[in-house]
Amino acid sequence: MNSAALDVVGIGNAIVDVIGHADERFLAGEGFAKGAMTLIDAARAEALYRKMGPAIESSGGSVGNTMAGIASLGGAGGYIGKVRDDLLGEVFRHDITAIGVRFETPAAIAGPGTARCLVLVTPDGQRTMGTYLGACAELGPEDIDAALVGAAQVTYLEGYLFDPPRAQAAFRAAAAIAHGAGRQVALSLFDPFCVGRHRAAFRELVAGEVDILFANEAEICSLYETSDFTEAAAAVRGHVAVAALTRSAEGSVVLADGAAHRVAAAPVERVVDTTGAGDLYAAGFLYGLTHDLALPTCGAIGSLCAAEIISHVGARPEVALRELAARAGLI
Amino acid sequence: MNSAALDVVGIGNAIVDVIGHADERFLAGEGFAKGAMTLIDAARAEALYRKMGPAIESSGGSVGNTMAGIASLGGAGGYIGKVRDDLLGEVFRHDITAIGVRFETPAAIAGPGTARCLVLVTPDGQRTMGTYLGACAELGPEDIDAALVGAAQVTYLEGYLFDPPRAQAAFRAAAAIAHGAGRQVALSLFDPFCVGRHRAAFRELVAGEVDILFANEAEICSLYETSDFTEAAAAVRGHVAVAALTRSAEGSVVLADGAAHRVAAAPVERVVDTTGAGDLYAAGFLYGLTHDLALPTCGAIGSLCAAEIISHVGARPEVALRELAARAGLI
Repeated sequence: MNSAALDVVGIGNAIVDVIGHADERFLAGEGFAKGAMTLIDAARAEALYRKMGPAIESSGGSVGNTMAGIASLGGAGGYIGKVRDDLLGEVFRHDITAIGVRFETPAAIAGPGTARCLVLVTPDGQRTMGTYLGACAELGPEDIDAALVGAAQVTYLEGYLFDPPRAQAAFRAAAAIAHGAGRQVALSLFDPFCVGRHRAAFRELVAGEVDILFANEAEICSLYETSDFTEAAAAVRGHVAVAALTRSAEGSVVLADGAAHRVAAAPVERVVDTTGAGDLYAAGFLYGLTHDLALPTCGAIGSLCAAEIISHVGARPEVALRELAARAGLI
Repeated sequence: MNSAALDVVGIGNAIVDVIGHADERFLAGEGFAKGAMTLIDAARAEALYRKMGPAIESSGGSVGNTMAGIASLGGAGGYIGKVRDDLLGEVFRHDITAIGVRFETPAAIAGPGTARCLVLVTPDGQRTMGTYLGACAELGPEDIDAALVGAAQVTYLEGYLFDPPRAQAAFRAAAAIAHGAGRQVALSLFDPFCVGRHRAAFRELVAGEVDILFANEAEICSLYETSDFTEAAAAVRGHVAVAALTRSAEGSVVLADGAAHRVAAAPVERVVDTTGAGDLYAAGFLYGLTHDLALPTCGAIGSLCAAEIISHVGARPEVALRELAARAGLI
């Protein structure tokens, strides 16, 4: 695979996170399911912001976080996603390009503003999200840079992209280009509710277009409508070449070629904010995969990156992940 | 003093911090003195932002941080400062009011945007700052809410306010109102270079208007143009009722009524980002003082709050300081 100019190109919702603390009563009062992502409109986003406590702003977006992680590991990446030409759009563009990711999707010059995700962190470190997709709704097949996608070993898509109306088409266009160029397609499922909203489309995509699948227990179970993880794992085996299934503190299981590799979670002193845990696991895993490392090592790098991200507020790495992985003897 | 409706009203530069990591070579290349604050114009702020790495945005401003700290301790506070009616201005207003601080200064509806401080954190946790004052230059005596100032036990002013052109007048107006109402005036010196820029004005103010002074070693030495801390400490004694002089890891010395109280620093596992250390020391100290606690206790609360702030990125508390202080048996 190593003839490609880029390791990974990611396609995702370009979002700035607004991260604050909240207690479970606040979540209940807002009608949020703890740990899940709820889509909200502009008016609700404003009303919720007024009610929530002090916050910090940090670039986010699931695949954006993953690409920042890959760049921090020393990987070569590109990003496709839609911001507006406003201040939050500039912040998003700055943060992802400053770490070395190619991001050339033009900003929308009209329509809704750059997307925001209001992240409510409970005292146990878990995060619950209200997302206003804003300018992300403008992403369409015309934004897929065929040269960029063709140049990357892996094209990585986030399941959340199924929410804005025209992104599914962008998704399929990108997958077709990638496969046409002999590249691989990776997908992350996110949030069992998001899986539930688009189950049929996800199943079709996983069966037909996806080579590498990321999901946690709840998501893979939701995809196959079962409460039994073993059953869900068996179902996914026939469809993808590699499935990396994460299980929070219990680490992950990597399924490939009839084998199942168990990967331990990396130790964390104190879980401060779980925002980005899955995104950074994917970053470590995809970095390893595109550098021809063994699958258990890919998983171990993923665990290490996830551990870094949950030890502080925010979903972008605070230290150079490359040094962290080198010190751990993984790269 | 306890008849006042508010504990502290702070007057400061209303700034949003943009916090990223940098190495010493980057600082040298930009001509920044490590640990200091350099004033930059809009063009330089934009150029520097383009060059700096990924960042997070967090409400800041020295006195803004202090007021957030006092509110987090359970104190009643107000804030006077100038933002523009733009997105960063909304962020600043949200964050300070969400924690319970009264902030009613109208936003500027024209002129430069809300102030930004580009904070460069080096691997040792020290921060170096480039500040674009923007809308802060619009603050003037007309923004001083006499009822608010008269209602607070202590009016707290930041030395940085001497940089924007009309704020000195606002400063003096506020001090006159406070003293006219039988209240106290506190001042923080910040940055030896800022002290150097306005030495004569600061000396006059300290001698004539200030009851409670905060400064670190370098700043108090700069004020009295001496390299000897003992000499500087002796000089300040005659001028103010209380001087709290901070000495980084060595804690602080509180001078009052002919006595000198030594206060230890609170332990910190790992210094991540020193942004806001002085601001949060002042928060703890002023909370104690306005709740009639003994001076060594005031200093100890200050140390505790400073320790919390330097253990994470950003200059606003991430946990309820009231609980922290209660657990430590200080309140």
